[in-house]
Amino acid sequence: MDRVDKLLELVRLNVDSDIDTVMIWNYENSSSANTFYLSGFKGSCSVLILRDDGRYIVTDSRYFEQAQEESTFQLVKHTGEKLTDSVASLLKDLSAEVIGFEAEKLDCKTYNELTEKLDVKFLPVDRMLWLMRSVKSEDEIEAIREASRVAEQSFLDTLSVIKEDVSELDICAELEYRIKKRGGQVGFETLIGTGPRTSLPHAKPTSRQAKRGELILFDFGAKVRGYCCDITRMVSVGEVEEEIKECYALVKKSLLQAVAEGKAGVVARQVDSVARQVILESKYAEFCFSYGLGHGIGLEVHEMPRMGPKFEEPLPTNSVVTVEPGIYMPGKFGIRIENDVVVRDGGFETITNLDDDLIQI
Amino acid sequence: MDRVDKLLELVRLNVDSDIDTVMIWNYENSSSANTFYLSGFKGSCSVLILRDDGRYIVTDSRYFEQAQEESTFQLVKHTGEKLTDSVASLLKDLSAEVIGFEAEKLDCKTYNELTEKLDVKFLPVDRMLWLMRSVKSEDEIEAIREASRVAEQSFLDTLSVIKEDVSELDICAELEYRIKKRGGQVGFETLIGTGPRTSLPHAKPTSRQAKRGELILFDFGAKVRGYCCDITRMVSVGEVEEEIKECYALVKKSLLQAVAEGKAGVVARQVDSVARQVILESKYAEFCFSYGLGHGIGLEVHEMPRMGPKFEEPLPTNSVVTVEPGIYMPGKFGIRIENDVVVRDGGFETITNLDDDLIQI
Repeated sequence: MDRVDKLLELVRLNVDSDIDTVMIWNYENSSSANTFYLSGFKGSCSVLILRDDGRYIVTDSRYFEQAQEESTFQLVKHTGEKLTDSVASLLKDLSAEVIGFEAEKLDCKTYNELTEKLDVKFLPVDRMLWLMRSVKSEDEIEAIREASRVAEQSFLDTLSVIKEDVSELDICAELEYRIKKRGGQVGFETLIGTGPRTSLPHAKPTSRQAKRGELILFDFGAKVRGYCCDITRMVSVGEVEEEIKECYALVKKSLLQAVAEGKAGVVARQVDSVARQVILESKYAEFCFSYGLGHGIGLEVHEMPRMGPKFEEPLPTNSVVTVEPGIYMPGKFGIRIENDVVVRDGGFETITNLDDDLIQI
Repeated sequence: MDRVDKLLELVRLNVDSDIDTVMIWNYENSSSANTFYLSGFKGSCSVLILRDDGRYIVTDSRYFEQAQEESTFQLVKHTGEKLTDSVASLLKDLSAEVIGFEAEKLDCKTYNELTEKLDVKFLPVDRMLWLMRSVKSEDEIEAIREASRVAEQSFLDTLSVIKEDVSELDICAELEYRIKKRGGQVGFETLIGTGPRTSLPHAKPTSRQAKRGELILFDFGAKVRGYCCDITRMVSVGEVEEEIKECYALVKKSLLQAVAEGKAGVVARQVDSVARQVILESKYAEFCFSYGLGHGIGLEVHEMPRMGPKFEEPLPTNSVVTVEPGIYMPGKFGIRIENDVVVRDGGFETITNLDDDLIQI
């Protein structure tokens, strides 16, 4: 049973037994993760039509050759003006009646155009796709491992070119260059912050230069065979003040306790709580991370499952999540350490191999 | 009158005079171009609420500090579980009644949640945003020029490291590294194709190596101050066969004739037709580019206006578009040359400075 069969089975079991078609829309500039996951196609714009009696990929002339190279699905050439016309006409030809679709992705305009042209019932199946993708095969886990090895080695190589007065943008360029030279893609927009900018949990690199006594935050990942890792490490330029060391030790303790707590079946909220408690019980309580402790990774850098105070679901076996506690003192400094782990029945299995101590250069 | 005032005026004039609010949704992983254009905020997730009596930016704790640094809009802290709750509550407090929104962007789920919580009227205003963004200020044009200078110089620098047997992925890594070292961002996913892979109009780089006598296609861009350029050039490894030279000369002629034809007020279809005719009248007619001749560029690499056989609208003064004719012989080779131009009243003003001949290395 392949992924499409599995999806059709899942949506019939959990959404509506009458679903005869699933439609997966991949817009220009949107994530193509579900399309790639189900069809193998890597182009930027397509629509998948998935049924028991056939699998179709609708795309335009830029991708006719590529779609046939990358996917076994039957190519439906879109040559007219509006993609919705091609899709509606195919759905009519196939006599589709009950269509599962991604309500969190399909835009209102496309939805309205389709419902005007077709007398069908549309039902949201987003959750089924997230659930499927949250549980990884060993091959998918291996791809994340490979991505991690590329990212880690590239990070270590980059340390050799970092010195006082290097800008965040230059650090970013050096790191991303090394990821690509090692055959990876950049997994997501690399975050590099120096000095007080480390207190921004999502600091995009700027021309600011690292000064002596300051921290540098690296939040980075590589993508290999479509799968990405997500790692955060802190580097200090020379010696840092005592308060930074204290906070670093706390964040590391928080990370290690969360990793020790986690395993398949544990409620996500519980792992978050263990990590958070370590910081909340310290004198840095008010600077404790305000986001969720972690998130699933895979074809995208943010997937299911999520680990935060509001997530009541048990973590599934063979999901892969980040663990990333932090302390953030606005205007002063921030500290985050982030590892990736596989959720196994016996516990969290850490993928990230990098040492988790503060790296002084 | 700033951009928000202009937008409110435009939507009232062209969509509905009762519109009291415009809502701009910036999802995780979606384009933040409209958000940045209107507010200056560069974060990955936010909702703008724009009214005569106030401008608001709703975002989560990751971005509280950044939103206040980058935007003058009033920060509305989203701390609960669902962003739609925070937005609905703000819209209620403001007594919003008729709300302009992006129907081509807002997903069905969010739309349904909002309409369930609120007794308001939603009206699509996508087109107004595209129209506003399609006409550039001289400062925006200057940013595209700067991006072009960064991309061109990085391309020329990269040529020195290209030789037989360099892989597409390595070429891509070298080019993108140079763009970043010159202070640019990579404008979009760089396309590098070698040999027969040049016939894929959207060839993502692979481990394939360029061989003697083959072409290398570079489709690349840099982004500076948020604005990107989009350039395609062909490089040959040593001498190429006569057919390639013939096709190259045709594509170049097609490009030059289109550029000579274009100016503000000319119907987009007409410029496409002039370029296409050059190839359709040759013995390579069946291999003529099947996509539209060009597209607007700016904060995104694909914007309005579009130039293709179906576009009946006149090109607006101070829009910026690509001109990119090509010949594609599947399995053999493809040739594309792409320049960026400003649409002026007196004609197309070419931004791209690179020589437009085939570059032999």
